[in-house]
Amino acid sequence: MTNRSLLILPGDGIGPEVMAEVRKVIDWFGTRGIAFDVSEDLVGGCAYDAHGTPLTDATMARAQEVDAVLLGAVGGPKYDVLDFSVKPERGLLRLRKEMDLYANLRPAQCFDALADFSSLKKDVVAGLDIMIIRELTSGVYFGEPRGIIKEGNERVGINTQRYTESEIARVARSAFELARKRGNKVCSMEKANVMESGVLWRDVVQEIHDAEYPDVELSHMYADAGAMQLTRWPKQFDVIVTDNLFGDLLSDLAAMLTGSLGMLPSASLGAPMANGRPKALYEPVHGSAPDIAGKSLANPIACILSFAMALRYSFDLGAEAERVETAVNAVLADGLRTADLMGPEGGTPVSTSAMGDAIVAKL
Amino acid sequence: MTNRSLLILPGDGIGPEVMAEVRKVIDWFGTRGIAFDVSEDLVGGCAYDAHGTPLTDATMARAQEVDAVLLGAVGGPKYDVLDFSVKPERGLLRLRKEMDLYANLRPAQCFDALADFSSLKKDVVAGLDIMIIRELTSGVYFGEPRGIIKEGNERVGINTQRYTESEIARVARSAFELARKRGNKVCSMEKANVMESGVLWRDVVQEIHDAEYPDVELSHMYADAGAMQLTRWPKQFDVIVTDNLFGDLLSDLAAMLTGSLGMLPSASLGAPMANGRPKALYEPVHGSAPDIAGKSLANPIACILSFAMALRYSFDLGAEAERVETAVNAVLADGLRTADLMGPEGGTPVSTSAMGDAIVAKL
Ligand SMILES: CC(C)[C@H](C(=O)O)[C@@H](O)C(=O)O
Ligand SMILES: CC(C)[C@H](C(=O)O)[C@@H](O)C(=O)O
Repeated sequence: MTNRSLLILPGDGIGPEVMAEVRKVIDWFGTRGIAFDVSEDLVGGCAYDAHGTPLTDATMARAQEVDAVLLGAVGGPKYDVLDFSVKPERGLLRLRKEMDLYANLRPAQCFDALADFSSLKKDVVAGLDIMIIRELTSGVYFGEPRGIIKEGNERVGINTQRYTESEIARVARSAFELARKRGNKVCSMEKANVMESGVLWRDVVQEIHDAEYPDVELSHMYADAGAMQLTRWPKQFDVIVTDNLFGDLLSDLAAMLTGSLGMLPSASLGAPMANGRPKALYEPVHGSAPDIAGKSLANPIACILSFAMALRYSFDLGAEAERVETAVNAVLADGLRTADLMGPEGGTPVSTSAMGDAIVAKL
Repeated sequence: MTNRSLLILPGDGIGPEVMAEVRKVIDWFGTRGIAFDVSEDLVGGCAYDAHGTPLTDATMARAQEVDAVLLGAVGGPKYDVLDFSVKPERGLLRLRKEMDLYANLRPAQCFDALADFSSLKKDVVAGLDIMIIRELTSGVYFGEPRGIIKEGNERVGINTQRYTESEIARVARSAFELARKRGNKVCSMEKANVMESGVLWRDVVQEIHDAEYPDVELSHMYADAGAMQLTRWPKQFDVIVTDNLFGDLLSDLAAMLTGSLGMLPSASLGAPMANGRPKALYEPVHGSAPDIAGKSLANPIACILSFAMALRYSFDLGAEAERVETAVNAVLADGLRTADLMGPEGGTPVSTSAMGDAIVAKL
């Protein structure tokens, strides 16, 4: 027994492959005196296949107990026909909601070795390093009423965007806290010009700023202008804070800008537990990529860097997190490339597991 | 009296300047036997300043009678303090809603002379020509209940995403019709993996396709993946159809990709009127740009091309529309550039009105 517990949920598609490489990194730390109690379980389509639900109550309970959950990816075309209530995504959404992981940290970072990979011009993205804080437990993802109802002889689809003051305040605090450790600048995005929930969002972010973080530079932007500005000149941003739905689009957009999609990790954090560690789930930004699953083509780096985020945010092991990040940069500098990273400038093609081995060797 | 009526609403910021150039084009057609009855009125902040409302009932009534409304832009920091219900944007939203302009056509086109302007690599955007059809009269922009309420001692912001089957069906038809005149390919975007309104959206688009447009190639994409794919390789798309809110973000993103933001027009179309012409409003995609207003720096091309769209879609004057478009390309080829178009490769700097004059000279 160690005092660090991890629940690994590889999920669907390339999830299990990339997670196998994370295991190697975890094992390496184990041999160096930083050990973890690791358990593994099912989430998403594979959980549905085994149990008829994308997340069992037992797995949910286990996730509540551990220090950190590491998730691979969920979903795949095989499950498209499933009813909405048992879709693979519902497993992930249940974890986020019941663990109350309100602050989703999505770094959008351009790796030097990969700047050519972006569809954007090199000078627009080289050195890019922004952090998007997406609210993750509320908004239109969870608001009631919702569903498809019958009105006369028509179907009507309904979802509700709903934000309370305290939901906005806590994620705003996460953003300001993070900004203080970075460039000290926050841009908040909403549609306050058309949505009242956006008006409240803007007001509360401003109030928290004025009362508690007056030293941080704060600006507000409409989310459509935000999408434009991210595309035009992303380096103008440091920390972006936005709601669940805008955050979904804008963080994916930002990730794609970097050209380093297969490289980007994320952390979803909630309130501190009894032991002082926050409730936490870590997952790569990329999806389950069913088209390349099982072919040793997947890039394990995003998932490995998600574990590095766990070291930093759950276990206060910042130096160890940097060690992993340095190892990743070193293999890239050596020219090692999984299939998704093979560009015109060449490099040494490696499989998923060879990439994992190379990173461990650099540790 | 002609049998073609136009209501011009220049609006705020650079709106009046760019509209003045459109007037020159309209006048040119007048001298060539294609005359328009033009009236002019207020919308947005300037209407609020004059009447305490961003759109008077009289202006609204006039908009319902004319063949086409031409709008410049609304809004500005001066009006940020106004109550939500009288913000400049409410004037525009009232026009869209009461005229029932459900199909918003937003071409994202890269002008050859301006391909270097994009933050994206030239090969990614050169020759780009996609059309985004955004639903414009429903969804979270108009759904009830909405507002900021008090719950206990907390404020709660609420908006409702609501789509009926027929609202989805009619905009889907617009997209399929347009696709048949273009690349015959439609991609529909929603978040059916997390929103029931997205499930209905996907189902209805598929049903309309199967029943009425089986010859058109149809695909579906989650909106977050859509944002990524637009950034990665936008040329994969022909026509994109999506809801009001996703359309707001995605069409702005697509516009920014082209590097030709000051060039992009839009049309908002409704049902046919008694004379067979559709209810219609035309406006540039760019905003009111208060920072450059009144300085003769604004680019009038987006607004002039919006009038070209009016020629095509309201007055069935396709050849005349092309004449305007050709004139625009000709001045660009000559190297004429308003401030927003001045890049490293140089060009001849021209004012807003010199650009308008040059386009008229090319007609
Ligand atoms: C898989 C899906 C439910 C999820 C979301 O929409 O939040 C994903 O797109 C993400 O961004 O993590
Ligand atoms: C001005 C604003 C209300 C509007 C919108 O959100 O629809 C604008 O962003 C647009 O896209 O036309």
